[in-house]
Amino acid sequence: MPGDAASSDGPRPVSGKGAATRAVILETALASFRDRGYDRTTMRQVAEAAGVSLGNAYYYFGSKEELVQEFYAAIQVGHRHRAADALRSRDLVDRLRGVLHAGIDEMAPYHSFAGSFIKVAISPASASSPFSPESAVARQAAIGLFREVLAGSDARPGGPLARDLPELLWLAYLGITLFWVHDTSPDQARTRRLVDTAAPLVGRLVTLSRLPVLRAAAADVHTLLTALRPRDAHR
Amino acid sequence: MPGDAASSDGPRPVSGKGAATRAVILETALASFRDRGYDRTTMRQVAEAAGVSLGNAYYYFGSKEELVQEFYAAIQVGHRHRAADALRSRDLVDRLRGVLHAGIDEMAPYHSFAGSFIKVAISPASASSPFSPESAVARQAAIGLFREVLAGSDARPGGPLARDLPELLWLAYLGITLFWVHDTSPDQARTRRLVDTAAPLVGRLVTLSRLPVLRAAAADVHTLLTALRPRDAHR
Repeated sequence: MPGDAASSDGPRPVSGKGAATRAVILETALASFRDRGYDRTTMRQVAEAAGVSLGNAYYYFGSKEELVQEFYAAIQVGHRHRAADALRSRDLVDRLRGVLHAGIDEMAPYHSFAGSFIKVAISPASASSPFSPESAVARQAAIGLFREVLAGSDARPGGPLARDLPELLWLAYLGITLFWVHDTSPDQARTRRLVDTAAPLVGRLVTLSRLPVLRAAAADVHTLLTALRPRDAHR
Repeated sequence: MPGDAASSDGPRPVSGKGAATRAVILETALASFRDRGYDRTTMRQVAEAAGVSLGNAYYYFGSKEELVQEFYAAIQVGHRHRAADALRSRDLVDRLRGVLHAGIDEMAPYHSFAGSFIKVAISPASASSPFSPESAVARQAAIGLFREVLAGSDARPGGPLARDLPELLWLAYLGITLFWVHDTSPDQARTRRLVDTAAPLVGRLVTLSRLPVLRAAAADVHTLLTALRPRDAHR
């Protein structure tokens, strides 16, 4: 029974039959995001397509925005899985290029969805914004992946850049994603070329960051990052 | 009479009574963008508020998108006017900081409008996108302002950066604008701090760009910019 284990506002139970139902609803919602687009996906239609009652769907997901967070989580898990090969190299540029391409691979089925979705996610105060408090878990996981890109490489960034780089790479990845959303070239080939250009540049800048003459610039970048960061990013 | 001088698809006449009518329609549209938002502004409502017939409004502006291009043009003129003081300095950081603040000053009355408008302008293939062929005139004017920021300064960027910098600064300004749209702090004070941080960083990087060790990075940035640039940007 859906209500069995629900005693608080915390996460819903994810074992046994409940977990299976939840997974079916999520899979159905992701398929609908892909096939119908974001705007035309509703909780009612997801519930119907998943063969559960509307009340049952709402038991597992309080809103369409919660489905988006699950979408982010699913993309994140898929991204990390696809990135495994690239993370076997110790070369920073190889690792970064591989991880960026893996992200685009993972998002590829959602390209047509992205055009409508970005109008929501770009909105100030939207829960689906990558900068929102609601997206904190997905954001930290994504930054964590870029931390892994750096930590497992033989590159050693200097000065304040060492600390900021995972977050800067995540911001760059958001920029690449924004470019990808707009990319109408076949199979988003232009985004692939952008990644192939950006990764060596990052590698070069990381190497240069050890030069004393660049320390002050890295300190400025740190101040800039602090100015950019959502005020509630760490709450 | 509206039809008097209309003999082609070219720009409409801008002298005499026609120019006055056109200006009234544009002023009314800009006021509606500010006060009602982008979505709720229609050609019909603009015509009514301006006291002209719908046909007359369409004679001067073929669509709401053409009003947006006029909005861009008006913002551009206002921006350049406000930037005049800053452009009296020869210090690159002072010039850049002043021009960026002037842009935010000019956009300030439209902050509430920006939240709804960006959902349109961010869209792939929207005529209102800053990267669209339709926006080419506004884009070139904006890049020209940053070219002026550099040309009138005593800074001398090295290598390929010298050529790319106006466009890179324009891209940075778009990023700042995106931040500004989302900025819910009083009077968008966080965007002001972002500008105050970004300008000295740019100044530092321009100085560093003369170092031979950074030439290769500047060449990478050039390749990146080429990958980013819309394929029809120069048509």
